[in-house]
Amino acid sequence: MYGMISTWRMAYEGVVNQFERLKEGEFAGNVLEASIREIEDFENFISVGYGGLPNEEGKLQLDAAYMNGSTFEIGAVAGMEDIKNPISVARLLSQDRFNIFRVGDGAKKFAESEGFLSENLLTDYSKNKWEERLKKVENEELTPYDGHDTVGTVVLDKDKNIVSGTSSSGLFMKKKGRIGDSPLPGSGFYADSDIGGATATGLGEDLMKGILSYEVVRRMGMGLSPMDAAQTSLKDFEEKLERKYGKVGAMSLVCMNNKGEWGIATNVDFTFVVATNEQEPTIYTSKRTEDGETVIEKAAAEWVEEYLSNVLTRQE
Amino acid sequence: MYGMISTWRMAYEGVVNQFERLKEGEFAGNVLEASIREIEDFENFISVGYGGLPNEEGKLQLDAAYMNGSTFEIGAVAGMEDIKNPISVARLLSQDRFNIFRVGDGAKKFAESEGFLSENLLTDYSKNKWEERLKKVENEELTPYDGHDTVGTVVLDKDKNIVSGTSSSGLFMKKKGRIGDSPLPGSGFYADSDIGGATATGLGEDLMKGILSYEVVRRMGMGLSPMDAAQTSLKDFEEKLERKYGKVGAMSLVCMNNKGEWGIATNVDFTFVVATNEQEPTIYTSKRTEDGETVIEKAAAEWVEEYLSNVLTRQE
Repeated sequence: MYGMISTWRMAYEGVVNQFERLKEGEFAGNVLEASIREIEDFENFISVGYGGLPNEEGKLQLDAAYMNGSTFEIGAVAGMEDIKNPISVARLLSQDRFNIFRVGDGAKKFAESEGFLSENLLTDYSKNKWEERLKKVENEELTPYDGHDTVGTVVLDKDKNIVSGTSSSGLFMKKKGRIGDSPLPGSGFYADSDIGGATATGLGEDLMKGILSYEVVRRMGMGLSPMDAAQTSLKDFEEKLERKYGKVGAMSLVCMNNKGEWGIATNVDFTFVVATNEQEPTIYTSKRTEDGETVIEKAAAEWVEEYLSNVLTRQE
Repeated sequence: MYGMISTWRMAYEGVVNQFERLKEGEFAGNVLEASIREIEDFENFISVGYGGLPNEEGKLQLDAAYMNGSTFEIGAVAGMEDIKNPISVARLLSQDRFNIFRVGDGAKKFAESEGFLSENLLTDYSKNKWEERLKKVENEELTPYDGHDTVGTVVLDKDKNIVSGTSSSGLFMKKKGRIGDSPLPGSGFYADSDIGGATATGLGEDLMKGILSYEVVRRMGMGLSPMDAAQTSLKDFEEKLERKYGKVGAMSLVCMNNKGEWGIATNVDFTFVVATNEQEPTIYTSKRTEDGETVIEKAAAEWVEEYLSNVLTRQE
């Protein structure tokens, strides 16, 4: 049994490429890191790594994390500037006993000491989007905060290792130094090879109030199917958040257990990618209907074609 | 019913002072913030706020967080320099919908924009300790990492609000930008007024692998007494961490439920402070015996006297 699940359509190419290595018995950590690096490197995916969405000051500040569910090694970076592959920095930190979570200049200093290059990650396209948004926000035409598509991935390999990881440029137009749930253990990601792994995307400020990735893994550990674990965790938390906080932001979860079974939950239009020993890499679209049911469908060929064309031509 | 519980002896004076306000019906958030500010302000407590322990570069980088269990408002700062009262900055951030967790220069920028003064927080005493440690580490006489006493506090007020918060200068000699569990929701702190609150101190790198504050609150929510929730959460996690990671660092937990009942768990020599409607502020010492039992005793008068004398004369 083996497989992987990833948030958002942007994960597809990386999953397709790395799933071949997973089939050959490659370690889950290597598969996860390589698949996320592909997204970080591709400038046309504008919410992760190179070409990501900048903060209010026009600067990219990146968050990422890595967790090995067999060893409980965790590494994380947050608010890191100028380093192209935060997932690799996070993974490297997971090898340490101390200082495994580093932020800001300290994260960058570590990365540079390990040979990562400092480079400009802001593309002309992202810079233009930032300038446009800045103007609209100044004119009060819209709230700045509506872009936050984190890649989150869970991988189960043939040796039963489960690894979970995330990478994100965070909330578009975020304030300097703002970090979301992506680098936070239990909130943005969690993995326990005895059980399974989970990861989240959406409004980090809400996700971190619910510790949702941990909760999904815990419920799988109680015997719930991945689908039930994700669905009930999200719904129970939404009910509580609505009651206590009065507002519920966008939240999506994906998970996989140690049998390669998967589940998701979302309260928005959400896409994700799955590949397992029983299923070649597949793009799914999902949404919650008005009566609270979650509809999951394989993405139609036309949808995929339109998406690709939009990304390659930078349309929205 | 009302009460508060805090990690470490250093919390005592703040608890004594603020418990009077709690008796009078003051809001838990105000009691918590004021009691932690007293520790941050007192330079002779060397692991929190002013006079705290610096990182490898001789710079204080502070972590803090605040959570209101009635509203699920969370605010957090990490790796923040030059601002004396990180707990107040964290609490202020909890009022926002977005950007509630800020790190590094961004956290400082926010604090300054809100009128917090930028000032040197490194006392001569802390600087000397840092220089001594640096020398010993260079001579390989000891590992740098053995100081990490976070103040973590849970308060239940007469209106049934439960608030949890932390403040810490983090691991002594930590690498630049390193953050621990203290500012991480679910790991260093959690609160849900329907149930209770919890907070942690110890080696953040291990605590964040177990999401222990969330787990303790969750177990109280399943009906466990605070003592059983804390004890079983820590023991179950230690077993798992030993099996998977092969190493278990220092970890201590304190919690209180919505009836004002409290619990703790620790795998080291640990002190804490409790005050409830049934009990005036009391300092306890605790440790785990060789057969795994936790012994909790009121601190002897001689112990308290010696501690005070040591703190005031800066002995260890």
